[in-house]
Amino acid sequence: MADVATKRELSSAETEAASREAKRAKVDDKNGEEGGDEAEWENVLSTFTASRVLSDSAREKIMFLHGKIADDDAVVVLEKTPIREDSLAELFRGSKLRLEMKNDIYSSYRLQAPPHLNEIKTTVVCPATEKHVKKYQRQESFLVEETGEDYRAVTLPYVQEQSLSLQWVYNILEKKAEADRIVYDDPDPELGFVLLPDLKWDQKQVDDLYLIAIARQKDIKSLRDLSSEHLPLLQNIFQKGKEAVLQRYKLPASKLRVYLHYQPSYYHLHVHFTKLGYDAPGCGVERAHLLSDVIQNLQSDPQFYRSRTLYFPLRADDGLLGRFKEAGRL
Amino acid sequence: MADVATKRELSSAETEAASREAKRAKVDDKNGEEGGDEAEWENVLSTFTASRVLSDSAREKIMFLHGKIADDDAVVVLEKTPIREDSLAELFRGSKLRLEMKNDIYSSYRLQAPPHLNEIKTTVVCPATEKHVKKYQRQESFLVEETGEDYRAVTLPYVQEQSLSLQWVYNILEKKAEADRIVYDDPDPELGFVLLPDLKWDQKQVDDLYLIAIARQKDIKSLRDLSSEHLPLLQNIFQKGKEAVLQRYKLPASKLRVYLHYQPSYYHLHVHFTKLGYDAPGCGVERAHLLSDVIQNLQSDPQFYRSRTLYFPLRADDGLLGRFKEAGRL
Repeated sequence: MADVATKRELSSAETEAASREAKRAKVDDKNGEEGGDEAEWENVLSTFTASRVLSDSAREKIMFLHGKIADDDAVVVLEKTPIREDSLAELFRGSKLRLEMKNDIYSSYRLQAPPHLNEIKTTVVCPATEKHVKKYQRQESFLVEETGEDYRAVTLPYVQEQSLSLQWVYNILEKKAEADRIVYDDPDPELGFVLLPDLKWDQKQVDDLYLIAIARQKDIKSLRDLSSEHLPLLQNIFQKGKEAVLQRYKLPASKLRVYLHYQPSYYHLHVHFTKLGYDAPGCGVERAHLLSDVIQNLQSDPQFYRSRTLYFPLRADDGLLGRFKEAGRL
Repeated sequence: MADVATKRELSSAETEAASREAKRAKVDDKNGEEGGDEAEWENVLSTFTASRVLSDSAREKIMFLHGKIADDDAVVVLEKTPIREDSLAELFRGSKLRLEMKNDIYSSYRLQAPPHLNEIKTTVVCPATEKHVKKYQRQESFLVEETGEDYRAVTLPYVQEQSLSLQWVYNILEKKAEADRIVYDDPDPELGFVLLPDLKWDQKQVDDLYLIAIARQKDIKSLRDLSSEHLPLLQNIFQKGKEAVLQRYKLPASKLRVYLHYQPSYYHLHVHFTKLGYDAPGCGVERAHLLSDVIQNLQSDPQFYRSRTLYFPLRADDGLLGRFKEAGRL
C-alpha cells in the first residue's frame, strides 16, 4: 500500500477560497448541542489552497493534503468520523436516501445525513515544515535491525542532531495547552504523568479509544533509555492509567492494549492506551511493545533495552534509514 | 484485529454479491452531485427500528445493525464513503468548521460538509435470515493474562480435551493435499518445514503477501512448548523461509514481518510471513511474536516461554475464555 503515493496535482484555481460571509449565510444548524453559538464557526479552510494529496486510505476514509494557508505551508488531515450508535435514531429520521441498486433481498442506497450528524475531523498543521510534509507522505517501509551498539553509534547521534522541538509536550505537562483535555494528571515529578486523548481520537465513542500517557520525567527519550530504575514509573503509568480509563470510560483493563512505540514519533517517554479490537495505526508487532512485556523484561534483566537487538520499520525517506545504510547496516 | 478483518471480508463479499447481478436494477443517477429530483429520494430507514449493533469498526467507519423494517428482520450496513479528491474544492468552499483545539502549530476542527459531498453508503438486507444476522455479529475480545502455571492448569488441559484434528496439516506435510501450492519444502524431519501461501492470500500481488511455514516436527503445539533445543529449527525456518520468499517473490527480508501467534489457531508449530506495510489480520502486538524476538528470548533464557506471563485476546465465545473465568483468572 506504500507506493500508491500519488503525485496527483489539484488545480489551485479550483481551490480558490470563496467568501467567508457566503458560508456563514449557509449556517443553518439549529441543534443545540452540536450547533451552539454561530460565532464559534469559522472556515480556516476557505483560505487553504491544496496542492497535492500526500496520501489517503479509502478503507479508513482519511486523506492527507499539502498546501498553503495564506503564505504558510500547511498540512491538512481530513478523516470521516466513526458512525455513532447514540445518534442513529436521529440519523434515520433526518436523512434522505437514494436507491442505487436492488437485487432480491439486497438493496443499496446513498444516504445524505444532516451535517452535524456526519462530521469530518480536520487537523491542521500550520506553518508546516518539510518534515511534517514528509511525515504524511506515503512511503515504503523497511525493517531495520538495531543492536545496542547500532543504537549508540547510529540512532542516538541522529536523534540528538535532529533535536526536534518538544515544546508542545512541555506545554501539555505545564498546562499551557490542552489543559481541558487532560483525563488524568499525576503531578509527581519522578513517577507522574499526564493522560490525555490522542489527537487521532474524536472522543465520541470508546470503540476507537486512544489515549497517550506522557511521563513528567524529561530525560527518557525512548524504550532504549529504560532500565530497572524506571520500573516504579512504568508500573505507576500502567496502574493509574488503567484506573483512570476505567473510571472515565468504563473500560476495564481486559479491553485495553497498552504499549510503547519503538521508534517513537517523538523522543519523550510516552505510552499508548488503545481499545483492544480497535485496529489502531502503529499497534503492529513490528513497532509496538506491550508495557506489560517491557516491565517483565526489565524485571528479569535491568539492562534489557540497552543490550537487546530491536526491530522496527523505517520509511524510505527517513533520515535514520540513510544513516543505517551509510553504516552498512541495511 | 481479527474481528475487523472478518468484517472487512464480509463487507466486500456483501458488496460483491449485491452488485453481481445488479445491472438491470441499477437506478440511473443523472444528477447525483446536486441532489437531483426530490422524488427520487426516499427514506426506507425512517421505518427501520434498530435493535442492536451487530458489529462496527471505528477505523473503517462502518456499522452493521440488526432491526426491523415493518415486520421483517433486517440487517442494515452503514459505511462512510472515502474522501474524494475531485470534490475537495467544493468541500472547502461549502463547509463550516468549529475549532476544537489549538496548541502551537497544531489545531483541530470539526468540519460540517454539505450532505451531498459526504454521503453514507447504506446496504439493506431485508428480509434477513438468522444466518445473515450471525454473519455480521461481532464477538467482543478480552485480553487474557496467562502465567506459566495458568498454561499448565487451564490452557493445556483445554487444548488437549479439544484435540482438534490436524489431519489437514499432515496432508500438507505428506503432500496428500495442496502439493501444487508449496513454495518451499525442507524435508529434514527435525529442522524441516513446508512454506505455502496462506488461504487468505490470493497471490495476485505481493502487497498483501501472506505465507505460512509449517514445521515438520509434530510435537510442538505452540510458543509455550519452545525451548532452546528448538533454536536450530527456528533459525532454519527464519533463514530458509526468507531466502525462499526472496527467490520466488523478489521480496527481501527487510520487507517481511515474520512471527508466531499466541494463542495460535491450531496447535501445530507454524510461522507467519507477511509483507511489512500490509496490515494483515492478527499482526497486532497483542497476538503476534516476532520470530527474531522469540529466538533472542530463547538464547538468553532456554525456558523463557515456559515461565513467562503471556497476554492474548480471546473472543467472548471462546471456550478457553470460559475456563479462565472458572479458574478465577479473569
